[in-house]
Amino acid sequence: MWKDRNISTFIACESTYKEADTVLFGAPFDGTTTFRPGTRFAAEVMRMESYGLETYSPYLDRDMEDYSIFDGGDLELPFGNKEKALDAIEDAVKTILTDGKRPFMIGGEHLVSLPAIKACYEKYPDLHVIHFDAHTDLREDYMGEPLSHSSVIRRAWDFLGDGRINQFGIRSGLREEFKWAAEGHTNLTKFNLEGLKETIDSLKGKPVYLTIDLDVLDPSVFPGTGTPEPGGISFHDLQGAIKMMETLDIIGLDVVELAPHYDQSGASTAVACKTVRELLLTIQK
Amino acid sequence: MWKDRNISTFIACESTYKEADTVLFGAPFDGTTTFRPGTRFAAEVMRMESYGLETYSPYLDRDMEDYSIFDGGDLELPFGNKEKALDAIEDAVKTILTDGKRPFMIGGEHLVSLPAIKACYEKYPDLHVIHFDAHTDLREDYMGEPLSHSSVIRRAWDFLGDGRINQFGIRSGLREEFKWAAEGHTNLTKFNLEGLKETIDSLKGKPVYLTIDLDVLDPSVFPGTGTPEPGGISFHDLQGAIKMMETLDIIGLDVVELAPHYDQSGASTAVACKTVRELLLTIQK
Amino acid sequence: MWKDRNISTFIACESTYKEADTVLFGAPFDGTTTFRPGTRFAAEVMRMESYGLETYSPYLDRDMEDYSIFDGGDLELPFGNKEKALDAIEDAVKTILTDGKRPFMIGGEHLVSLPAIKACYEKYPDLHVIHFDAHTDLREDYMGEPLSHSSVIRRAWDFLGDGRINQFGIRSGLREEFKWAAEGHTNLTKFNLEGLKETIDSLKGKPVYLTIDLDVLDPSVFPGTGTPEPGGISFHDLQGAIKMMETLDIIGLDVVELAPHYDQSGASTAVACKTVRELLLTIQK
Amino acid sequence: MWKDRNISTFIACESTYKEADTVLFGAPFDGTTTFRPGTRFAAEVMRMESYGLETYSPYLDRDMEDYSIFDGGDLELPFGNKEKALDAIEDAVKTILTDGKRPFMIGGEHLVSLPAIKACYEKYPDLHVIHFDAHTDLREDYMGEPLSHSSVIRRAWDFLGDGRINQFGIRSGLREEFKWAAEGHTNLTKFNLEGLKETIDSLKGKPVYLTIDLDVLDPSVFPGTGTPEPGGISFHDLQGAIKMMETLDIIGLDVVELAPHYDQSGASTAVACKTVRELLLTIQK
Amino acid sequence: MWKDRNISTFIACESTYKEADTVLFGAPFDGTTTFRPGTRFAAEVMRMESYGLETYSPYLDRDMEDYSIFDGGDLELPFGNKEKALDAIEDAVKTILTDGKRPFMIGGEHLVSLPAIKACYEKYPDLHVIHFDAHTDLREDYMGEPLSHSSVIRRAWDFLGDGRINQFGIRSGLREEFKWAAEGHTNLTKFNLEGLKETIDSLKGKPVYLTIDLDVLDPSVFPGTGTPEPGGISFHDLQGAIKMMETLDIIGLDVVELAPHYDQSGASTAVACKTVRELLLTIQK
Amino acid sequence: MWKDRNISTFIACESTYKEADTVLFGAPFDGTTTFRPGTRFAAEVMRMESYGLETYSPYLDRDMEDYSIFDGGDLELPFGNKEKALDAIEDAVKTILTDGKRPFMIGGEHLVSLPAIKACYEKYPDLHVIHFDAHTDLREDYMGEPLSHSSVIRRAWDFLGDGRINQFGIRSGLREEFKWAAEGHTNLTKFNLEGLKETIDSLKGKPVYLTIDLDVLDPSVFPGTGTPEPGGISFHDLQGAIKMMETLDIIGLDVVELAPHYDQSGASTAVACKTVRELLLTIQK
Repeated sequence: MWKDRNISTFIACESTYKEADTVLFGAPFDGTTTFRPGTRFAAEVMRMESYGLETYSPYLDRDMEDYSIFDGGDLELPFGNKEKALDAIEDAVKTILTDGKRPFMIGGEHLVSLPAIKACYEKYPDLHVIHFDAHTDLREDYMGEPLSHSSVIRRAWDFLGDGRINQFGIRSGLREEFKWAAEGHTNLTKFNLEGLKETIDSLKGKPVYLTIDLDVLDPSVFPGTGTPEPGGISFHDLQGAIKMMETLDIIGLDVVELAPHYDQSGASTAVACKTVRELLLTIQK
Repeated sequence: MWKDRNISTFIACESTYKEADTVLFGAPFDGTTTFRPGTRFAAEVMRMESYGLETYSPYLDRDMEDYSIFDGGDLELPFGNKEKALDAIEDAVKTILTDGKRPFMIGGEHLVSLPAIKACYEKYPDLHVIHFDAHTDLREDYMGEPLSHSSVIRRAWDFLGDGRINQFGIRSGLREEFKWAAEGHTNLTKFNLEGLKETIDSLKGKPVYLTIDLDVLDPSVFPGTGTPEPGGISFHDLQGAIKMMETLDIIGLDVVELAPHYDQSGASTAVACKTVRELLLTIQK
Repeated sequence: MWKDRNISTFIACESTYKEADTVLFGAPFDGTTTFRPGTRFAAEVMRMESYGLETYSPYLDRDMEDYSIFDGGDLELPFGNKEKALDAIEDAVKTILTDGKRPFMIGGEHLVSLPAIKACYEKYPDLHVIHFDAHTDLREDYMGEPLSHSSVIRRAWDFLGDGRINQFGIRSGLREEFKWAAEGHTNLTKFNLEGLKETIDSLKGKPVYLTIDLDVLDPSVFPGTGTPEPGGISFHDLQGAIKMMETLDIIGLDVVELAPHYDQSGASTAVACKTVRELLLTIQK
Repeated sequence: MWKDRNISTFIACESTYKEADTVLFGAPFDGTTTFRPGTRFAAEVMRMESYGLETYSPYLDRDMEDYSIFDGGDLELPFGNKEKALDAIEDAVKTILTDGKRPFMIGGEHLVSLPAIKACYEKYPDLHVIHFDAHTDLREDYMGEPLSHSSVIRRAWDFLGDGRINQFGIRSGLREEFKWAAEGHTNLTKFNLEGLKETIDSLKGKPVYLTIDLDVLDPSVFPGTGTPEPGGISFHDLQGAIKMMETLDIIGLDVVELAPHYDQSGASTAVACKTVRELLLTIQK
Repeated sequence: MWKDRNISTFIACESTYKEADTVLFGAPFDGTTTFRPGTRFAAEVMRMESYGLETYSPYLDRDMEDYSIFDGGDLELPFGNKEKALDAIEDAVKTILTDGKRPFMIGGEHLVSLPAIKACYEKYPDLHVIHFDAHTDLREDYMGEPLSHSSVIRRAWDFLGDGRINQFGIRSGLREEFKWAAEGHTNLTKFNLEGLKETIDSLKGKPVYLTIDLDVLDPSVFPGTGTPEPGGISFHDLQGAIKMMETLDIIGLDVVELAPHYDQSGASTAVACKTVRELLLTIQK
Repeated sequence: MWKDRNISTFIACESTYKEADTVLFGAPFDGTTTFRPGTRFAAEVMRMESYGLETYSPYLDRDMEDYSIFDGGDLELPFGNKEKALDAIEDAVKTILTDGKRPFMIGGEHLVSLPAIKACYEKYPDLHVIHFDAHTDLREDYMGEPLSHSSVIRRAWDFLGDGRINQFGIRSGLREEFKWAAEGHTNLTKFNLEGLKETIDSLKGKPVYLTIDLDVLDPSVFPGTGTPEPGGISFHDLQGAIKMMETLDIIGLDVVELAPHYDQSGASTAVACKTVRELLLTIQK
């Protein structure tokens, strides 16, 4: 008793940094959210609520207690200074990669993925991205701002280029964004996960960054987000997709856009936590 | 800057009345609601929340910005005087029809559909009704009251007569109501949308009034309503049905029964807004 | 007017105890809940909200008004004394069985099923159990406590033995629990209701106790529970399963784990009420 | 066990009608509410929550268990038919008065007070009214409707006449209403309870009807109401005022305008319940 | 009917811009909020909820219908670009001042006051500020950022200098901030409004900017804010203070920090609306 | 970066155990709560929300950063086994006292105070208790159970005896409880804090245990509790009382009964956090 100050981690993420091969951390930033902010609280609330889960997955027949995962807590990010916040995330991911570990980030709004993808790309120039989302996130800018949660994938494209980005579940965007994607810039699957199997097969052996905007799920499954967009995929769809990814070489990943204040029942937080657990177990080798 | 007093419309409904071919308006009445009132706030809240949507529909490949839709705001309806409220709605719909435009009403409780259907029927005596709902709404009366949200379709039958009303998704009602419908008074499809395609085909060229009680959706999709009735259709079902209606000649329509105070997450309001957007785009010629 | 003090029952459960063949009652106990308590309020809230339903089921074409069901209200259970509370439940169920009636209990947490199953087992030594749940509930103990909501089925196995317990929809538990079940102690179906038809056929003519932990439903359908576990069955699945059970000889049953305070929209309570109605109509002969 | 169907009363109101000298009942009507409806649920929720109280008042050193109070439950009132609803209330109050008992009504919106005051006036032509409220409720009509929650006291004046109505705590109304009162029609005290002692003294020996719109309390104390109006009295003020009324001959009374859906914490319902308890104990002789 | 697109203003703010002497507008910015964001929705929600008020103030015996106030709606501000947002606010206020009108801004977070004060200062170099708040807002910077809601008054001091800023109700801040104020930079009154009368007297005839952070109120009165700080003033205190300001020459003002999503009951929004009404009536000459 | 697993403490409680003179810890037990459970989450939520405070108190002119306080997190307590839970708390407090430190416990329901008081009494046989509460907590038993949150002070009296317990703010209880106290067993002040100064003076130099049930506050100030009891003290009252206690020798203390799920706005949690901060600063020597 009383040895340590109170430690609070995502369930079963109790490895030390040194021993861990996966590093979980929160990126509590929601500064460019246009509709309803609040994703900054996601990682903190998920740590508390993750104890409603078991560490064992009957889907994967794996148990988190068999793996070495470190939870480093939330990064300290300056609100109201987007550039500094993104820089801090990029630095954190670089450190993790340099130390030979896999970064697993919990957002925050989707813009936090940009510096993470960038850091991974710098280490893995052959990087491919799998992107689950309700929204295209391909805007050139938002009210003149090039750095925004609705342009995050477009900004990643700026350095990744054509043919590297695979989008699934997309059901909302400007007409121009869908057109731009269709011109060959990204592989965009509308409404559902059709073709995911083929994409996964084609990416075998290549370094992959996986970014899951949880609003890819239908709002019935995941109401707790800033911009609920009806018509999404089910939890079964998402869980099946994760299982399918066991063969991939995921070198970095994130789960973003839980906004706990819109989740009165706690069901969305439970979905986010279970998604993280399944991902943590899937990426272990 | 500062030219006009603050204007608040449903997203992209920025035409003038004169130029519009569709007139959106709210009917904030919930005076006969037996269970949980509050639908009177629906249209007002939907205007605010509609900005979480995009104006473009990837389902229909159409954009609201290409059409002329006017949002006239909410009618002023006297609470506690059902008759005056219904008369005011009837007058509003008549004016819109007389001016050669299509009325699109946002309820309020379902009783608001009655005067709208009546006004349409007076202009189009060959009117047919498509009715999506969890509830039969075919009561002869409710505690002695003939005018009630649970008898609205029965009251429409009073003037439309047999064979004009097509009900889908129905899963709640008195035994007598189901019997009465089965005697040939309405075409009632239980539980789902089976036969919708055939109904649509048979109505080609005829004037149709479409009334969607959003509680036809499962409460998982649409909890924000006065009387949630489990076992409903999915958003995919509803969205597919709307797309199917492109061939119909819808001369008036409504979407009713969102009760925003039971929608803490905002997901139900998002469903209502997206339904309205898809309908607005589907009925355009 | 003013003949009786205010009576509050589940809708259409207005028989006297003497005339009733089914006795509905609440067991407001949640003393071993590990995550989020509050199921103690379920029965009381369900009585109020049941009036949002109709008494007629279009699924079964039966009407509650044709049957004799008594609602005895909530048992008075001492909070903070698990043993006394369980004893009181066991006594109540014994009395009902002795009087030749069928007990239908509304929980409360799942541990309340234990004394009910025990009382039924004492009258029907050939008892079989059908168990719908997200969780295995097969722990040997919880933090050293053998009596806990997460060990309730294991405790029932203590006296029922192998081959009597049929579990469906299970998607969460310790690795050991799944292993233990797979050793032949229970018939455990993971994730869904596969094989339910075969189980029902094999139990024809045998006395069956049915215990439904409502968290077997997906949290999108039923968020209002203490431990939401994503990936569950739909309401259609549950409703179909109930209908399938018409041929069974259900001699006692319960519905547990609604936690109304996590059900801001009321949709979960509506699901619980409709489940109870469908069960009440299905078990009538 | 199992003698009676489930009985649900306000705490300690367990007398039979015959033995009771006070008859508590609910009037679940909110049909003319202009802003946020929902007071129809007040009495039902208060019965459940009253068990958070004790039956003993340390303020009055009296215990409810020493008195004979009957809780007759909620009247069945037809939604959407104001006239019938008001008639039903008037009949109920007349019956109670004819039977030599004191009526204590729980609203509902404030309009329910009108038929109750009327029935009392018919038995006691010398009736005086004490009215606690944030709002004047003296409108001639509301959007042309003479019967409305915002004209209830004006309608009572129609038959009571000048000098009979004493208003306290008033802080909202039309300029005309304040003027009209100031012309001598009612004794209106703005903002607080100044002069209440004098009023009580002057009414000694006369029959008094007490109507308390709970929004007289500051919204910090009582947020759970349709039209929160900042600047009200404290609970201490209200409790002190009730105690002061021990010397009055209150022959009928009501407490109105709790809207439980706006009371997430339950604090407003607790205030309403404690107010009812203190009143019930104060009026006993 | 149907002349105009739907207009939505704060109650009785229906003047045209040209005729108005006061211009109400919203500044929906919360980009530097450190704790709980969401003040961006305040003005929009207040417009809707203001209709729960009357236009007449019995405190001031004035009626909004007698004055010419224009509601210009919310400014369009780019999220995620603090500098542009502040510039847009400064421009708006300058335009209003240039046109000889009085700006009345509804925040948003407190940082929006900075450009408004600056614009007023440029027109009125003799400007004094009265500042009601729970927090000092005097930080030199926040995590290195000089522009933040917790440094807004310090930034205003940068150009106003010593002796111009009068702070009331302050009960939270860094030790350094209190020290810095005490060195003579601002007149800071801790905990309450002591000395307000003297301050008002001393400012007679001078141009005053009034900025009210509503969290100066106790959280019991005003829970709906990002950083509730117990121990604040009552609504009576605030209302009395406003009345006292009738003699001042307020040339610009704002009311900030309502966060509607933390105001489930609506009571905080009602407080904000009534505060705005009383201010609007007080500043009219 | 990444040195430690994520540490989560109450703001500024970052000392090691060894260096600390005060040990803060949570006792997440609510197993005997009769009305609305949920206090088990209080300490965890307070740690998160405490960052909305500053570390400096302008009331006391002290800063938490100047003191050595250790936050040991929540004890692991077995739900559903009252005896083991109470034993675990007693052991924890004993250890702290043995190590020469001061225990500061955050409940949990009030019963958690019993083992803490007991452990303190064993070290300090001359112990006196100051008890702030809305409820007497002096029941001999609750439904036959001697160990219950409503008998906690009576159980403490069992070993402390007459004249050692000083109760303030009490406004709810059985008639028998008030009588029993009045017989000289405890010093009970009804409704408010009258006589606190005298009590403090009389206890100078004696070891004091302070237990604050936060429901001593009025529900307007502190709605987030299981049994809101109107008519309580204000935050100013409580803050003043704490300041008054600077002269006492408080050798152990607790703050209990925050139930975060009834605190949608977060205001109650803020009150609890600020109370803890003020207490932590007051007890430092």
